[in-house]
Amino acid sequence: MEKEKWKRSARLVDLTNQLLSQPYKLIPLTTFAKRYQSAKSSISEDLTIIDEVFRNEGSGELETVAGAAGGVRYIPKLDLTRTEEILADLCVQLEKPERILPGGFLYMSDLLGNPTLLSEVGRIWATLFAGVKIDAILTVEIKGIPLAYAVANYLRVPVVIARYDYRVTEGSVVTVNTVSGSSGKLKPLSLSKRSLPQGSRVLVLIIDDFMKAGGTVRGLQDLCFEFDATVVGVGVLAEAHVPGRLVDDFVSLISVSEIHERDRTLRVGIGNVFQDRFVE
Amino acid sequence: MEKEKWKRSARLVDLTNQLLSQPYKLIPLTTFAKRYQSAKSSISEDLTIIDEVFRNEGSGELETVAGAAGGVRYIPKLDLTRTEEILADLCVQLEKPERILPGGFLYMSDLLGNPTLLSEVGRIWATLFAGVKIDAILTVEIKGIPLAYAVANYLRVPVVIARYDYRVTEGSVVTVNTVSGSSGKLKPLSLSKRSLPQGSRVLVLIIDDFMKAGGTVRGLQDLCFEFDATVVGVGVLAEAHVPGRLVDDFVSLISVSEIHERDRTLRVGIGNVFQDRFVE
Repeated sequence: MEKEKWKRSARLVDLTNQLLSQPYKLIPLTTFAKRYQSAKSSISEDLTIIDEVFRNEGSGELETVAGAAGGVRYIPKLDLTRTEEILADLCVQLEKPERILPGGFLYMSDLLGNPTLLSEVGRIWATLFAGVKIDAILTVEIKGIPLAYAVANYLRVPVVIARYDYRVTEGSVVTVNTVSGSSGKLKPLSLSKRSLPQGSRVLVLIIDDFMKAGGTVRGLQDLCFEFDATVVGVGVLAEAHVPGRLVDDFVSLISVSEIHERDRTLRVGIGNVFQDRFVE
Repeated sequence: MEKEKWKRSARLVDLTNQLLSQPYKLIPLTTFAKRYQSAKSSISEDLTIIDEVFRNEGSGELETVAGAAGGVRYIPKLDLTRTEEILADLCVQLEKPERILPGGFLYMSDLLGNPTLLSEVGRIWATLFAGVKIDAILTVEIKGIPLAYAVANYLRVPVVIARYDYRVTEGSVVTVNTVSGSSGKLKPLSLSKRSLPQGSRVLVLIIDDFMKAGGTVRGLQDLCFEFDATVVGVGVLAEAHVPGRLVDDFVSLISVSEIHERDRTLRVGIGNVFQDRFVE
């Protein structure tokens, strides 16, 4: 198949596959022209068709960059209707009383173990932060990890993981203290020195699963400060309302309130995600 | 676009997108016929084109299931040539002396933070275990997590995470003891009771990042035994040769030998992955 000209039908299938599997990667049109032994004008026509289908179906768009260093890249997105459906469904799933654990926590590991749901949530984050330049995604062990990778898959940026317990396999680390908002206890949080280049103004997106007072997110922000990195956004899957929050600026997909351990009741709703940020 | 008949070009793009984003999901042809307002025979022709392109480009295949409960599903794969390229490149990256950490460990977090590499490794695992029925992927905190999800994205099965430290947010847990092969020390390893249905013969694939004596993998196998689950496969990214290994049957992508901390030298090669298992 390599040497001969591809048929348009085969080209459309392969182009779609190539673009979907490499989100945000700028691919020169000449790469495709060579691959398919076809004229650039034909490739351009194909890309117009793909872009139209993606936009109509709410799964993103193609961005064309003109010039010698130009090309085309796929920007993954999820449309508003589908986003609302997914979050509404998530609320229903989270509102089950049997999810309440001792200490007013919520069992979410089953949801965080579901690759389809994670992929959808990742796509929602990718849509929210589509216009933001991001060099790395920072999260904290354990439950933030699958969420961070779910976003990274769509934004195509590396993930770095902060840890509560220093392990030998990480090499030397930078450590800050985090304050637990509920207990007031101090807990060290570390990031491997190798994981982010220091002093190079790296742009970081912070992702975590659950935020109460925000002590962990605050710790992650402090770590970024130590690395001279800039935090360009904070996203949490769920927030629970508590007084004296340590973090102001964040996006939450889900909001949990009124967890009553004794009565086994809780209220779950959509987070602050649609509050004047999420523009189609 | 919803009510009118789709053009073949648009249909091919959308079909490719639908199939790629839902690996292993059996989708009835009627679903597509309705979506595109097209005859099943046209859809069948489209699927033949897509299948041919996927197979030629080594990115998997479509499986058609006949009958009333039938349909089509996408089986993601990676061809042998590309697999060899990726693993050879991984060897080059891992063989750098600066990766050697105190204790004879290897710094791999940068590689495990790279979503593109992870996705490729996930695809290799998915190819290796394509013929095996799997209900869940079991891994252990921390570094096994991204690998487990990378595979889960292609096999579309849930991930469950065993943990060394029991946390309140997991609810009640089952705990086994793992033996560190090097130090002989005991370390408890726990899995939330809610994470796997007990006594239902769940089929489990174990995935981890690095195996020396195999104490952790052995612990994961013991946990499966406690849950009455069956281990159908064990995959590790890298194995290091040590005497007295606790696990016999596993697949490793990379093999690390002769780590000399003092001289800062090591040898990295392909693991046992091609030893009579990996059949195209």
